[in-house]
Amino acid sequence: MAIPTFTDICEAANRLKGVAHITPVLTSRQLNARAGAQVFLKCENFQRVGAFKFRGAYYAVSRLPTDPPLCPVVALSSGNHAQGVALACALLGREAHLVMPEPINPVKRAAVEGYGGHVHPAQDPHRAEDLAQELTQASHGHFIHAFNDPDVIAGQGTATLELLQGVDNLDALLAPVGGGGLLSGAALAGHAINPRLALYACEPAGALDAFYSVQENRVVPQNNPHTLAEGLKTSLGSLTLAILRAHLSGFFVVDESEIVEAMRFTYERLKIVIEPASAVALVPLLRRESLLEGKKVGVILTGGNVDWAVVGPLLAKPPRVC
Amino acid sequence: MAIPTFTDICEAANRLKGVAHITPVLTSRQLNARAGAQVFLKCENFQRVGAFKFRGAYYAVSRLPTDPPLCPVVALSSGNHAQGVALACALLGREAHLVMPEPINPVKRAAVEGYGGHVHPAQDPHRAEDLAQELTQASHGHFIHAFNDPDVIAGQGTATLELLQGVDNLDALLAPVGGGGLLSGAALAGHAINPRLALYACEPAGALDAFYSVQENRVVPQNNPHTLAEGLKTSLGSLTLAILRAHLSGFFVVDESEIVEAMRFTYERLKIVIEPASAVALVPLLRRESLLEGKKVGVILTGGNVDWAVVGPLLAKPPRVC
Repeated sequence: MAIPTFTDICEAANRLKGVAHITPVLTSRQLNARAGAQVFLKCENFQRVGAFKFRGAYYAVSRLPTDPPLCPVVALSSGNHAQGVALACALLGREAHLVMPEPINPVKRAAVEGYGGHVHPAQDPHRAEDLAQELTQASHGHFIHAFNDPDVIAGQGTATLELLQGVDNLDALLAPVGGGGLLSGAALAGHAINPRLALYACEPAGALDAFYSVQENRVVPQNNPHTLAEGLKTSLGSLTLAILRAHLSGFFVVDESEIVEAMRFTYERLKIVIEPASAVALVPLLRRESLLEGKKVGVILTGGNVDWAVVGPLLAKPPRVC
Repeated sequence: MAIPTFTDICEAANRLKGVAHITPVLTSRQLNARAGAQVFLKCENFQRVGAFKFRGAYYAVSRLPTDPPLCPVVALSSGNHAQGVALACALLGREAHLVMPEPINPVKRAAVEGYGGHVHPAQDPHRAEDLAQELTQASHGHFIHAFNDPDVIAGQGTATLELLQGVDNLDALLAPVGGGGLLSGAALAGHAINPRLALYACEPAGALDAFYSVQENRVVPQNNPHTLAEGLKTSLGSLTLAILRAHLSGFFVVDESEIVEAMRFTYERLKIVIEPASAVALVPLLRRESLLEGKKVGVILTGGNVDWAVVGPLLAKPPRVC
């Protein structure tokens, strides 16, 4: 698999025109004061399906061969990628088959089915990949990986492209890392526009595989991850590992209580809903990391799909004094 | 007290320029589909202090005599008006004294004190008005009522002015009713611009005093109100009653489970944080009220100051099937 070029990202932006939202970039006096920095929040929580994942999914689906009959698309995801592929297929007239590992969040399942996607529950999560392969072969379909795919990465890069087109001279960019698709796209778009942009991966202490993978230059598998940020439990892929090794300035590691506090801060002060993975990328600013002080910092708020059954009670507890 | 004119509202808009936010107007395909209407949400949750109350408070404070020494300001409020007056006084160089009935929400108290306001807890809520009067006399200050005040009403009217300047030919406008200040301002601004605009008050069944007040043409006091929408527990005042009687097309009465569902819908689909009072005004649309079907409908989302200790656990419960 080839590493996507800046031209690929621009082509993805072209195809997404009028289809994906050009999401707003928000600023907050209170956040700036707290961080001692000038912060620009790229709000992918307002993206279609509620997350940046729609960008990569749509671009990848749009690049499949268009000879009739249009072949179906298969994807494996318990969350936002499944919704992204389902909506992309609905818009582009293809059948979507989504393998979702059990237990499946009923809200996410309903969303996928609302877009006309066919859900295939994988009762044994370890068998999910095999199931996706089997489905792909049986249906003569195309499998679209959630992150280790050049088109998906190019699509995700359009979020950073838009951010940098709107905000000049960013010093640093923060994004969470799960499989690394978003961050890889951010790296390729960001360094094409500004080679001196410092790019930081933000990762929960309870799912610290990307940090070790980049350190050891091999994909270190997740070992019993424990974090609220569901989307960050995946390991890197070969392609995202190669891109991140070449582009990252460093990692910020955050703990679970910091994730909750960052969500609380965002809900209380900014009045926007973000999911735990997005909160992960805000923590270094709320912690006033000295590397970021006095800097112009971009943050990709990845999405706003919250499991309220989990997050609601956490917000109800009194906040830590800080 | 004179009913404010459209000129007063325009003057308020002038004074708020560069001080208050011109809040965004959001639209949502999903909300439109659900309501069978074209809906425009005026997002006062993104206003300073997190609620429209800053508008009226700032305008009223800005109209006080400016002979030195600047006299202090006294207000009585357990919530957003207190924050609005405190911030307005901070910006205009006046001392603010806020009488807050116990129990005081610690987040709101901290916000008021963060703006430099002096908090005077009223242990006996029935004594709160007397306490405010005493403070006003002792300090030679000015008392600013939370809603029964022409300047406050003119200030609140600027939210509707902005909405109607941005969106042509609205058929109807929905807003929640507590003391009636927001809705009075909306009525005066709305009918000056478009006399055929249908104006609907949205009121929780557990705090239905405004409905009876308008029906009986007298201020019917709240009798043991019970609703999540804290800000809607107040009764009308003489001035707001007179304005609402002259301008309202009708009332929509909503129940508590509908308020929770409207918050859930807004958090899950729109990804913005609104307080229960704002959710009250969305319910008629989510219920697909036939009066609104096929219409172009504005909604004032009043604020985003949520008590997560109360709302968090409610969101954690599984949603009603609808």
